[in-house]
Amino acid sequence: MSLIEDLTWRYATKKYDATKKVSAEDLAKILEATRLAPTSSGLQQYRIFVVSNQELKDKIVPIAAGQQIVADASHLLVFAAWDRYTAERIDHIYDKTTDERGLERGRFGSYTDRLKLLYLEQTAEENFVHTAKQAYIGFGLAIAQAAELKIDSTPMEGFNNEELDELLQLGEQGLKSVLLLPIGYRDETNDWLVHMKKVRNSTEEFVTFLS
Amino acid sequence: MSLIEDLTWRYATKKYDATKKVSAEDLAKILEATRLAPTSSGLQQYRIFVVSNQELKDKIVPIAAGQQIVADASHLLVFAAWDRYTAERIDHIYDKTTDERGLERGRFGSYTDRLKLLYLEQTAEENFVHTAKQAYIGFGLAIAQAAELKIDSTPMEGFNNEELDELLQLGEQGLKSVLLLPIGYRDETNDWLVHMKKVRNSTEEFVTFLS
Repeated sequence: MSLIEDLTWRYATKKYDATKKVSAEDLAKILEATRLAPTSSGLQQYRIFVVSNQELKDKIVPIAAGQQIVADASHLLVFAAWDRYTAERIDHIYDKTTDERGLERGRFGSYTDRLKLLYLEQTAEENFVHTAKQAYIGFGLAIAQAAELKIDSTPMEGFNNEELDELLQLGEQGLKSVLLLPIGYRDETNDWLVHMKKVRNSTEEFVTFLS
Repeated sequence: MSLIEDLTWRYATKKYDATKKVSAEDLAKILEATRLAPTSSGLQQYRIFVVSNQELKDKIVPIAAGQQIVADASHLLVFAAWDRYTAERIDHIYDKTTDERGLERGRFGSYTDRLKLLYLEQTAEENFVHTAKQAYIGFGLAIAQAAELKIDSTPMEGFNNEELDELLQLGEQGLKSVLLLPIGYRDETNDWLVHMKKVRNSTEEFVTFLS
């Protein structure tokens, strides 16, 4: 199957079959596609929390506007981004980069200096807008990878971020929740959306050619 | 090829072969994958401008920090998001949705009322943070679709948004530029990054399992 076929197949699943679980092997592929996603300056400004514990999923339902899909899905992926940039965070990945490429540390020093100048001057709020955006790239790729494996998912932004941060103790890790992605298998009989047409703006409306 | 293989193959191309052009057929696939991308509440809060005109690409080089890849790439995709939410924009896609699904208009009225209550109370700046985030999902999928076709691309955030908005007259269309994606074919001989190892945080560092 091609990516376009996978994206055509997928939809924002509204009802999961709570008895069907995503295998460890398939889950690993979804996480790997996300790990490989590009991020601004390669900084990987976010982390993934994989919630499979039923009690914990149940606790997240009221935090997610009472949406039962969080509890019924096989796994809940929580995307959480850096609450702010720090020099240590920037250096960590660039030290790793030079080490793995067999280059001397500091080889990208003039570049990381520019990143620090840019981001450390901003407020934490401005930083978080930027780190959170990076999570959206990986989020899309996680959805696509799930679809390639015929695994359903539901992209979710609507939840109480502060309450989830507290429940998962994200603040202590310098992180803030951004997105939720329940994954699992659709309950085809009881999902009102499954047979509805996917609607998008036409290519003519979506794209402008400047040739 | 699988998505993981495609994402492993790709890298942020630093030097394009200016003589090689992406075919209209392949370009259409990249745009289609982006069009199919999920967006918050299905609103498709962004548009794509495809720049293939050489003179226009050359004009964008100084706006993109002098990066020659913008001029050498076969096509430059500009992702531009709604500058703010309006009731008309929200109704447009939901009227289209009910029409295409053979439902009466207003069927999702209580939902769109809630969206309007949420977004129309916010400032234009808050709106734009949200609309811009949606473009990142499609951006990732455009990169993945290009990679599936063995087309190179370079994710770019660093450019003068205001100058690009003016050049492309985006403000008049209620849009603001968010991201650039040059696409084309790598110049393998002259790209310093092409043979460098791709570096990511380990799965252990990237993922936390709450089982």
